[in-house]
Amino acid sequence: MQTPLKIAVVGSGLVGSLLAIYLKRAGHTVDVYDRSPDIRKIQFSGRSINLAMSHRGWRALDEVGLGDEIRKLAIPLEKRAIHLVGQPLAYQYYGKEGESIYSISRGLLNRKMVSLAEAEGVNFFFESRVWDVSLETATLHTGETERGAWTDLDYDMVFGADGAFSRVRHRMQRQNRFNYSQEFLNMGYKELNIPANADGTHKLDKNSFHIWPRQDFMLIAMPNMDGSFTCTLFMPFEGEKSFESLKDKETLEQFFATHFPSTVDVIPNLVEDFFKNPTSTLVTMKCFPWTFQDKVALIGDACHAIVPFYGHGMNAGFEDITILSQMMEQYGDDWTTIFKEYEKSRKPNADAIAELSYRNFLEMSSKTADDKFHLQKKIEKRFSEKYPDKWLPLYSRVTFSYRPYSEALAIGDRQKAIMDEVMRMEGIENNWDKPIVDARILELLEQ
Amino acid sequence: MQTPLKIAVVGSGLVGSLLAIYLKRAGHTVDVYDRSPDIRKIQFSGRSINLAMSHRGWRALDEVGLGDEIRKLAIPLEKRAIHLVGQPLAYQYYGKEGESIYSISRGLLNRKMVSLAEAEGVNFFFESRVWDVSLETATLHTGETERGAWTDLDYDMVFGADGAFSRVRHRMQRQNRFNYSQEFLNMGYKELNIPANADGTHKLDKNSFHIWPRQDFMLIAMPNMDGSFTCTLFMPFEGEKSFESLKDKETLEQFFATHFPSTVDVIPNLVEDFFKNPTSTLVTMKCFPWTFQDKVALIGDACHAIVPFYGHGMNAGFEDITILSQMMEQYGDDWTTIFKEYEKSRKPNADAIAELSYRNFLEMSSKTADDKFHLQKKIEKRFSEKYPDKWLPLYSRVTFSYRPYSEALAIGDRQKAIMDEVMRMEGIENNWDKPIVDARILELLEQ
Repeated sequence: MQTPLKIAVVGSGLVGSLLAIYLKRAGHTVDVYDRSPDIRKIQFSGRSINLAMSHRGWRALDEVGLGDEIRKLAIPLEKRAIHLVGQPLAYQYYGKEGESIYSISRGLLNRKMVSLAEAEGVNFFFESRVWDVSLETATLHTGETERGAWTDLDYDMVFGADGAFSRVRHRMQRQNRFNYSQEFLNMGYKELNIPANADGTHKLDKNSFHIWPRQDFMLIAMPNMDGSFTCTLFMPFEGEKSFESLKDKETLEQFFATHFPSTVDVIPNLVEDFFKNPTSTLVTMKCFPWTFQDKVALIGDACHAIVPFYGHGMNAGFEDITILSQMMEQYGDDWTTIFKEYEKSRKPNADAIAELSYRNFLEMSSKTADDKFHLQKKIEKRFSEKYPDKWLPLYSRVTFSYRPYSEALAIGDRQKAIMDEVMRMEGIENNWDKPIVDARILELLEQ
Repeated sequence: MQTPLKIAVVGSGLVGSLLAIYLKRAGHTVDVYDRSPDIRKIQFSGRSINLAMSHRGWRALDEVGLGDEIRKLAIPLEKRAIHLVGQPLAYQYYGKEGESIYSISRGLLNRKMVSLAEAEGVNFFFESRVWDVSLETATLHTGETERGAWTDLDYDMVFGADGAFSRVRHRMQRQNRFNYSQEFLNMGYKELNIPANADGTHKLDKNSFHIWPRQDFMLIAMPNMDGSFTCTLFMPFEGEKSFESLKDKETLEQFFATHFPSTVDVIPNLVEDFFKNPTSTLVTMKCFPWTFQDKVALIGDACHAIVPFYGHGMNAGFEDITILSQMMEQYGDDWTTIFKEYEKSRKPNADAIAELSYRNFLEMSSKTADDKFHLQKKIEKRFSEKYPDKWLPLYSRVTFSYRPYSEALAIGDRQKAIMDEVMRMEGIENNWDKPIVDARILELLEQ
């Protein structure tokens, strides 16, 4: 047990509320501030992408005994279901038998996390706008408006879990020698919905991550507990096939009929939702350092916002908490060291999952529609099952493993070079499951 | 002549004051705001690096007839003078005969530029702190303190020429889809001084850029009109040989005696200056877009701060003005197009000079001390003189040319690949001026 401190967490999102539980369990007084109303009392925003909880996320929840509560909200997805125009549905399994990622509605999970934190004794202050923080004294500055009167709230320590546009980081950015970057994709996303059947069942296979890959744009759908699917359309903001180009009902319906014919019957509110729901941006944000002395630390999206194409934003944020908690166990009350070791351990892994997430957009949008890619996946899967100690595919390394993301990236690059060689083998289409392929992979692994 | 507008320029530095002159000449009312006092009424800060004006900078000045006024403040530097421990001074010419860069004291130049702008009818408002800008309305928000009462000042258009930590950009950064990065080197710099001789002459060769390259750190010296030299020590903030390690008088003097013996007699106030002058940081800042509708534009360091190792920060900022001015001539009152074409033209070149500047640190600090590098420079120079239409060295392309920086970077990369090949030729040390070398270069150029 650490010496009890008075700690403020800015942000009541997934990372903020789970962090609050960890800090409370460690004996601290924990106050969570959020500029938004209590998420349990409002409608969801119509701009979320469903979450894909995997090993790293579950570990952080299980460590404090909350995994089973959350599993009740989760639907296992064991495979991708790939919708191509004029072709039968194709399936691609994510991992070995029994390995799944889990679809969870962001809103439902966040409500649950806040309630769980409250039950632990965490104090929540909603509609409290934190405009600034004094780093040296861990003082929050709150108020109705940025330019109006502010109230100063003193703490022993402040965590910024306030997301990609973090106000806490905003103050840290003004320090000398603070490295920072934000880079937006030219692509945005919009939430759509596949409602449940009248009897509450799902209109598409419930245990699949559905994907309509179309090179420069794509649609995905992930199941919810109530029988519906949350869909997300990713496409460029501007250009020939873009959000900008889908200006009216006719153009939109024509576009979906042409490119996503299998959705026409299952997305009844396409036009209404499309023009009502906002078009959101996709940003990769990196910074360093993440901490200030023993006073302030950033966590989750506030220090490493990534694009959603690997489904690891929340998993990476939850893993931040796991590592911070390990450092707390190791270094006791020496928070300066806890913070230094936390950022040192996490930074390379946050950079790695940012890179992997960016690359996975390419894989999802174009390669999943490609025969050669499917063949390669089959070869990898076969070899990996035969030689599990020699080959764990990249996706599994990232998703069904606790090894560092940076290691996954490095080994993944090596595996990619090997598979490029293998795919150049003569007659690979016919010989893909022959011993000669195994032998070649084994040989390349030796080099 | 354009339709006269009421334009605010934030920042009275070199770019801000020259831009103000250009805008005034185009018929506009121009108000310049600066948070600092009038530079003509204060002492200089002890944290500047002398400027190296070259072709691009002179062109922007000559275009409005100010070149000759400024030439009076400038000392031509035709070569590097390289100081190695225990070796004679070595010289390396920058370009062809008659080609020089020009050393100018930043403070002197800035004073002169403000006076010239004032004489043109530009209005200056010093000690006016611009805290924010409303982009849609081109309104400046000024006041004593960031949290105190503000005065709103409405303009037709606002230019942010307020440097690497620009407040105008700060507001633009909060827009969606604004890309931004700031990256600090682990190295800082400190100003030192070589005073004039009693008779007003220079203690070192006046027409040289003096450099003491020491791999991980280096000292440079550039002459001033009064017989003194402004020196700049570049070294890491932390580590074995670092600013942090030079804690006291004895350590500092010992360090200079060991590594910069030729400076011991010429830097009499080393200890006092070293501990009095601040240690400044080095940042590369990139962003995009640079403009907002026809209302707001960033210019100079405010949108592309670079490290100083190519001596092109001011030259690049002045070239922004040249290009903006060309767009003004071309597009008349269509400021939306002027701004779009300006940022489109300048962004790739700003990125290129950022890259070149970063790379030049490596060249200056370590390669200038390397025999092989000198040989390579000799070969390049010889070939370039013999075949001037086939080979313009990278340094000349950047410094003694008006061709785009991005072109210089691309051609420079190609030349580097060729020279790497040439330096691998057997016996190159003895054959460097033989026809066989010319033939090899000509052959490689054909590929």
